[in-house]
Amino acid sequence: MTKRMLISGGRVVTAVDDVQADVLVEDGIVVAIGRDLDALAGDAERHDARGLIVLPGGVDVHTHLDYDTGSAHTCDTFESGGKAAAFGGTTTIVDYAHQHRGESPLHALEDWMKRAASATVDVGAHMILTDAAGAMMADARTLIRNEGVTSLKVFTAYPRSLMLDDGAVFRALRAAGAEGGMVCVHAENGAAIEILIEEAVAAGRTSPKYHALTRPASMEGEATSRVIRLAELAESPVYIVHVSAADAVEAVVEARDRAIPVFAETCPHYLFLTDAAYEAESFAEGAKVIMTPPLRGKEHQNALWRGLASHDLQVVATDHCPFCASEATLGRRHSKATEVQSFDVVPNGAPGLETRLPLLFDAAVAKGRLSLNRMVDITATAPAKLFGLFPRKGTIAVGSDADLVLLDPAGRSRVSAAGHHSRIDYSLFEGFELAGAIRKVFLRGRLIVDGAEWHGRAGMGTYLKRGPSGAVRL
Amino acid sequence: MTKRMLISGGRVVTAVDDVQADVLVEDGIVVAIGRDLDALAGDAERHDARGLIVLPGGVDVHTHLDYDTGSAHTCDTFESGGKAAAFGGTTTIVDYAHQHRGESPLHALEDWMKRAASATVDVGAHMILTDAAGAMMADARTLIRNEGVTSLKVFTAYPRSLMLDDGAVFRALRAAGAEGGMVCVHAENGAAIEILIEEAVAAGRTSPKYHALTRPASMEGEATSRVIRLAELAESPVYIVHVSAADAVEAVVEARDRAIPVFAETCPHYLFLTDAAYEAESFAEGAKVIMTPPLRGKEHQNALWRGLASHDLQVVATDHCPFCASEATLGRRHSKATEVQSFDVVPNGAPGLETRLPLLFDAAVAKGRLSLNRMVDITATAPAKLFGLFPRKGTIAVGSDADLVLLDPAGRSRVSAAGHHSRIDYSLFEGFELAGAIRKVFLRGRLIVDGAEWHGRAGMGTYLKRGPSGAVRL
Amino acid sequence: MTKRMLISGGRVVTAVDDVQADVLVEDGIVVAIGRDLDALAGDAERHDARGLIVLPGGVDVHTHLDYDTGSAHTCDTFESGGKAAAFGGTTTIVDYAHQHRGESPLHALEDWMKRAASATVDVGAHMILTDAAGAMMADARTLIRNEGVTSLKVFTAYPRSLMLDDGAVFRALRAAGAEGGMVCVHAENGAAIEILIEEAVAAGRTSPKYHALTRPASMEGEATSRVIRLAELAESPVYIVHVSAADAVEAVVEARDRAIPVFAETCPHYLFLTDAAYEAESFAEGAKVIMTPPLRGKEHQNALWRGLASHDLQVVATDHCPFCASEATLGRRHSKATEVQSFDVVPNGAPGLETRLPLLFDAAVAKGRLSLNRMVDITATAPAKLFGLFPRKGTIAVGSDADLVLLDPAGRSRVSAAGHHSRIDYSLFEGFELAGAIRKVFLRGRLIVDGAEWHGRAGMGTYLKRGPSGAVRL
Amino acid sequence: MTKRMLISGGRVVTAVDDVQADVLVEDGIVVAIGRDLDALAGDAERHDARGLIVLPGGVDVHTHLDYDTGSAHTCDTFESGGKAAAFGGTTTIVDYAHQHRGESPLHALEDWMKRAASATVDVGAHMILTDAAGAMMADARTLIRNEGVTSLKVFTAYPRSLMLDDGAVFRALRAAGAEGGMVCVHAENGAAIEILIEEAVAAGRTSPKYHALTRPASMEGEATSRVIRLAELAESPVYIVHVSAADAVEAVVEARDRAIPVFAETCPHYLFLTDAAYEAESFAEGAKVIMTPPLRGKEHQNALWRGLASHDLQVVATDHCPFCASEATLGRRHSKATEVQSFDVVPNGAPGLETRLPLLFDAAVAKGRLSLNRMVDITATAPAKLFGLFPRKGTIAVGSDADLVLLDPAGRSRVSAAGHHSRIDYSLFEGFELAGAIRKVFLRGRLIVDGAEWHGRAGMGTYLKRGPSGAVRL
Repeated sequence: MTKRMLISGGRVVTAVDDVQADVLVEDGIVVAIGRDLDALAGDAERHDARGLIVLPGGVDVHTHLDYDTGSAHTCDTFESGGKAAAFGGTTTIVDYAHQHRGESPLHALEDWMKRAASATVDVGAHMILTDAAGAMMADARTLIRNEGVTSLKVFTAYPRSLMLDDGAVFRALRAAGAEGGMVCVHAENGAAIEILIEEAVAAGRTSPKYHALTRPASMEGEATSRVIRLAELAESPVYIVHVSAADAVEAVVEARDRAIPVFAETCPHYLFLTDAAYEAESFAEGAKVIMTPPLRGKEHQNALWRGLASHDLQVVATDHCPFCASEATLGRRHSKATEVQSFDVVPNGAPGLETRLPLLFDAAVAKGRLSLNRMVDITATAPAKLFGLFPRKGTIAVGSDADLVLLDPAGRSRVSAAGHHSRIDYSLFEGFELAGAIRKVFLRGRLIVDGAEWHGRAGMGTYLKRGPSGAVRL
Repeated sequence: MTKRMLISGGRVVTAVDDVQADVLVEDGIVVAIGRDLDALAGDAERHDARGLIVLPGGVDVHTHLDYDTGSAHTCDTFESGGKAAAFGGTTTIVDYAHQHRGESPLHALEDWMKRAASATVDVGAHMILTDAAGAMMADARTLIRNEGVTSLKVFTAYPRSLMLDDGAVFRALRAAGAEGGMVCVHAENGAAIEILIEEAVAAGRTSPKYHALTRPASMEGEATSRVIRLAELAESPVYIVHVSAADAVEAVVEARDRAIPVFAETCPHYLFLTDAAYEAESFAEGAKVIMTPPLRGKEHQNALWRGLASHDLQVVATDHCPFCASEATLGRRHSKATEVQSFDVVPNGAPGLETRLPLLFDAAVAKGRLSLNRMVDITATAPAKLFGLFPRKGTIAVGSDADLVLLDPAGRSRVSAAGHHSRIDYSLFEGFELAGAIRKVFLRGRLIVDGAEWHGRAGMGTYLKRGPSGAVRL
Repeated sequence: MTKRMLISGGRVVTAVDDVQADVLVEDGIVVAIGRDLDALAGDAERHDARGLIVLPGGVDVHTHLDYDTGSAHTCDTFESGGKAAAFGGTTTIVDYAHQHRGESPLHALEDWMKRAASATVDVGAHMILTDAAGAMMADARTLIRNEGVTSLKVFTAYPRSLMLDDGAVFRALRAAGAEGGMVCVHAENGAAIEILIEEAVAAGRTSPKYHALTRPASMEGEATSRVIRLAELAESPVYIVHVSAADAVEAVVEARDRAIPVFAETCPHYLFLTDAAYEAESFAEGAKVIMTPPLRGKEHQNALWRGLASHDLQVVATDHCPFCASEATLGRRHSKATEVQSFDVVPNGAPGLETRLPLLFDAAVAKGRLSLNRMVDITATAPAKLFGLFPRKGTIAVGSDADLVLLDPAGRSRVSAAGHHSRIDYSLFEGFELAGAIRKVFLRGRLIVDGAEWHGRAGMGTYLKRGPSGAVRL
Repeated sequence: MTKRMLISGGRVVTAVDDVQADVLVEDGIVVAIGRDLDALAGDAERHDARGLIVLPGGVDVHTHLDYDTGSAHTCDTFESGGKAAAFGGTTTIVDYAHQHRGESPLHALEDWMKRAASATVDVGAHMILTDAAGAMMADARTLIRNEGVTSLKVFTAYPRSLMLDDGAVFRALRAAGAEGGMVCVHAENGAAIEILIEEAVAAGRTSPKYHALTRPASMEGEATSRVIRLAELAESPVYIVHVSAADAVEAVVEARDRAIPVFAETCPHYLFLTDAAYEAESFAEGAKVIMTPPLRGKEHQNALWRGLASHDLQVVATDHCPFCASEATLGRRHSKATEVQSFDVVPNGAPGLETRLPLLFDAAVAKGRLSLNRMVDITATAPAKLFGLFPRKGTIAVGSDADLVLLDPAGRSRVSAAGHHSRIDYSLFEGFELAGAIRKVFLRGRLIVDGAEWHGRAGMGTYLKRGPSGAVRL
């Protein structure tokens, strides 16, 4: 029997439109948007959205949930991470699965699937490649063609663990280009950075700020520029993750000006924090902001906002890669605590899933840096289009999943780790006062967040077999 | 009593979405988009759109209807031009009113209003400024604030008639920036071009190709770059009309990369024709393509397509400025015929209203150069947003005017002046075979084009008092 | 009878070489450079240059001596200015003659010749064009062809007095391009600046700093870029005078990267002072730095030094245009004193002839910003080559005029208006302590400066009929 | 006893000057330049240079003499190569010594010294690094500090033999930056190119043109840009060898515009030939132009000439790396002959020592592409300054080595392998008719070339211990 749900009287906002309308949902799918749809709603569950903004559920295409780095393990599961996401207005996550050296990417996906089974929001997977040997690439192509994992990730950083050489990067690009996939790149020159780190550590420069000083913006710009040229030669779209530096924005801009299919994401911490955070009093406090790339100076931050305004950056994702500040919270393995206090051994990463949309709404509306349409675009529509989830995800349109967020523009919220739903014990944005408050969140028509109450449950998230990535002409 | 209309079963496309849905209209306004809206439709007039694409009516923001240049007069009235527009899928026109030297812009608007009264589609006005004396600027500000004419146009070309010096351009920009308006600019260096024309004519180089050779791309690039810097200094948005040259695209790109509010339009003739057309056998044939800026080489055309792909150009408008090829058609004053056969005395301009959407649909769909969403964006959504007509015009959304185009993607059409509805006697695209055929066009819910039949009438177009221009953060 | 002179044991430096050698001079011409030339010297006048650097006499291609602006008159004559030059190591001046509206440039040259007859160093003339009517341009061409005035100057600033429109600029470029001349350009957008000045004065913002604020860097960049494109179209070399802004450097760089014959000069005040100088306590103090373009911020200064390093700027000239700070010194007409204290009525200009070489030597040697070869290049060789004076001037080579400067690198000097030889009553660099001291200066083999003593005399300077300008491929 | 030599009546040209003068030489050193030096000359050997141009001997900083690549050996020894150089007006060579993996660079130098002992012109050495392990870098630093080998070379191409990863490149740059050395870079992305070669060979595309098609310009641009950023970070000057692609020029220009100490060389074959040469009828003919980077299209060639004009390229060197076309000439090991006819196994390299100056003189003088001063600069002065040989080499000045070339501008020559002095059996420029003829060449005052006669002898060349490289501010 058909299950109906009606959200009435809200201000429905997509990447392009902004209308007063009811939204009628049947069996988790939006079936009508219009004035006075009550007549069609019958026995529908009804939600009054007068005074509220109705947004498409957020799509976060950069998370690392239940992820083992070898020496540490992120502290959020797909259950806790999904819950945090939902409270932050995000209903779809594309998480990074990880092929280890010698392992088939198909096997890596199976492994990831097990962990993702507990997801509380819908999930898809990218695949990190660390081994591009011939047989591995054949399996990677199968992933794209048959498994809905239509994006591969490569690193040009971390020489001793994740880094691929340019030949392997080129092979991945060739594969993605041929199969309708996209390559996501962590772009820094790992080889040069490694030497800078050696030099710093040898000189006893081990405090958190040297994390930033040994990963200069120019080395992010270099790798971004290099990878773009490899992608151009390989005839593949390419997506630069977590852009933090003006130098990288410049490389992206140069290519996009030539209409090369280059896409780029930045993260809230680069938009709202600067490298001043490394001047923390204690090592532990500084360790909280040890993520890669590092936070940078104001001129870089300005370049990122400019890139969002000029459409040169298309996506804001979180790179949610949480390790607790204190080993007491969940044990050392889930924390940034280390034997020695040296920046180079601290697990890299920071949380962000729960604060992405609230921070951007505040920036968009209260501070006027973005239009509401553009906010929807960068948090939902563009990532859904780029990664083969559109139109199921990323918009409010007839036929789309009824992933909906009811946001009260007159509300206010205050960021606090204490009130959050992730298992992490700190927030990068602790104490930020933000305009707007999320009132309700629906996943495929089901109310999962209702004020402070959680109605979701482990396993209700479904796996999203994605269509071609990077195929879209935005 | 409410008048209802239902378009059922179509593929409804906006700048971002693309869904199968019915569209329900009441009193000329879209009230619902959904599956199976028949239950809400009651006694509605019904149109079956199965197999058809439903597009928002086109918005053409660059026309010169019933326009007197002094020595000639465009051959379309608001009636004939509007009809041509409608048959070409365009239901909104923003036409250029013209302040003469010594005339108040308010008076110029009144004058234009009289001519526009016969419009067969909805119309708004920009105001060409040729006199920026203090009192004139005060009236121009009133236009923006009170009359819904929220865009001024200035010329940096045509020294003896339309050109303003940089001081006057700066004053116009200051006014628009302060009042929530936009300045549209015809950007060529008129002073240098005038000397090139003198040199050419003195040397007996008078055939049509010298029209192109005396208006070099670099002088379009120069003026574009200059005007952008003046706009930046004046803190005003600026819109470059009819960009034809790679040099101008480059200037626009440079500014947009810095997130300066610079917008730009190109025209179908620059996208589909090249300067090879000046090599026509007869003077009269070459005269058909005497428009300004001139047609240019392939490398410029490629830059324009690239600019559309990279969002650096936002709008395709027609610059419909029609003069008959033959004086026999409507008399010499409405034609390109002149006493002497010299490129410099031929009235500048060409038709385009009826072919804009068909050409772009063919390019978008059959040739794959643009997505269908992007086609809607550049022909309807972006111009409506930029010129204060959104959301009434430019999209299909609840609350918008039901300006709708039903296009048959399986149909085909052949461009021919003979079959067109403009009064002009030639087409720039004669004989082009195009994928797609427009079946029906609605203006505010009323069927005005039904296959080959015209159901519109003079005067049914309404004047559109526009909101702030250039205010949008796209 | 041959007059011989031998300078022995010095370190002889040209734009490329740096050798220990004697320099033998006969009748004012260098005839040999070598080791132990004593045997050839016979009864020569002998000067011991051991421990000293022997430089070619400086060539300053931007001065305004005995110059009437209409409302004021520069305070140096060709006699006093030439003397100041000589004490500053400059032995050749190219001064700006000035065609008034309605006056033939040939007549303007005659007039200038009378004033220049008292010159104490060698002099050439550029011609400022303010009237580009047909007959005037014919005479300007004659100047280039026959009179050795191979450079014209145009202004894109000062709308009410000196400014030419783009058409006239283009005509001047066409003439220079055809005749083997060069066009020097004062590049600022005068029309926009005039409005900014009006706005400032109307708002009561009349202190000296508004001189800078109403002449923004972007308007210098705009005009520079515009003029370069006009020059490119006209197929003429072009020389941008007194570049002060990063925006202008950028325009020059862009063109030079494409190997367009664009050349540019900056001045010592832009290299050694910033706009902080406008924050002077009194109006009179601030008025001292009212020159055009204005002093700018540090980021602009850095761009100028970078431009010198990258060869994108080729010349450092003085724009010596001196008006006394106090009307008591030489009367109001020779001063910056005005009826009302408003920046817009103060005569624009500042002194510099006597300090150019000392400042640059200090920067080059003591501060290491330039090599000694490069210092010679920008102060002597490049200007001589660009303006048709080479190899007679600008180098130390067999056959060149024996214009020689003996500089003691171990000496020191302190800048002070009191000790200077110009008639001006202030220095922009008062109190600067500089490495290096000029010991002797020779003009065509004659000792004119010997320590603090002056051996020159009015009229000993000769008029230099210059060869083609801009013809050189540097 | 002092040995004197007088060259009288010639036109003596340096990078900046151009004078009629005698040149007096004592014991191989220039001691005077002047008019009528006969009086000083005594019993000097006299050469009449009336009607001739006297140039400084050429400095070629890129050769591979007596060089073993593993599978092949260049066909010129230091004796034959030096002789070819001398007949081509080059009297100084800086050749590439080669450290093999596991070998100390100090040992590699010793080895090179043995081979270089037979040199017929003066020689210096760069050191190719293929192993940047810690101890190796210590020895490399010793080379720079103590041995006069002040430039290291690294490859980003040839993954299986010469390529260093970015970390090793960075270490080499750090070393050079600290010690007053320069790093020369062969900049192509070897990893990507290797895959393109694999793909081509697998597809049976083995003819010579695939040599060019598998080494795309973009991969030269990429590596150039990457290495420049590494150099900037390492605070080292860097010198890009054999630039062939517009993409690489662009990277160099971008850096030089920012005044970063980046220098670049191109080679005569890139200036005078295009990739049309790969369309040769036979494999053997095509193999003659298999050098790396490959010859490229006209647009790249234009960019190189533009780079020379704009000073963005500073040096033209030969990359003389000769292998005979026929194995019959000197045996297979000295030839391009291979078992299988596939582009990827042909020894890379081509001759050029004897034709560099003649080709450039023809281009400079007859074709007007460069001034004579600039020709001297790029073939002698700039390389000498950049690589620590100035002022001993690279100019005609008091104190410099009397390496002199007497060139007859009225002469003509015809390029022909038959008439050349290298051991190679072909010329890339066979049949070129050139303006100008070299009449005499002097090495340190000794006549070694006299018309067609050779007066040099093996071993008369001396080893040049070079000063700091890259230290110069040009």
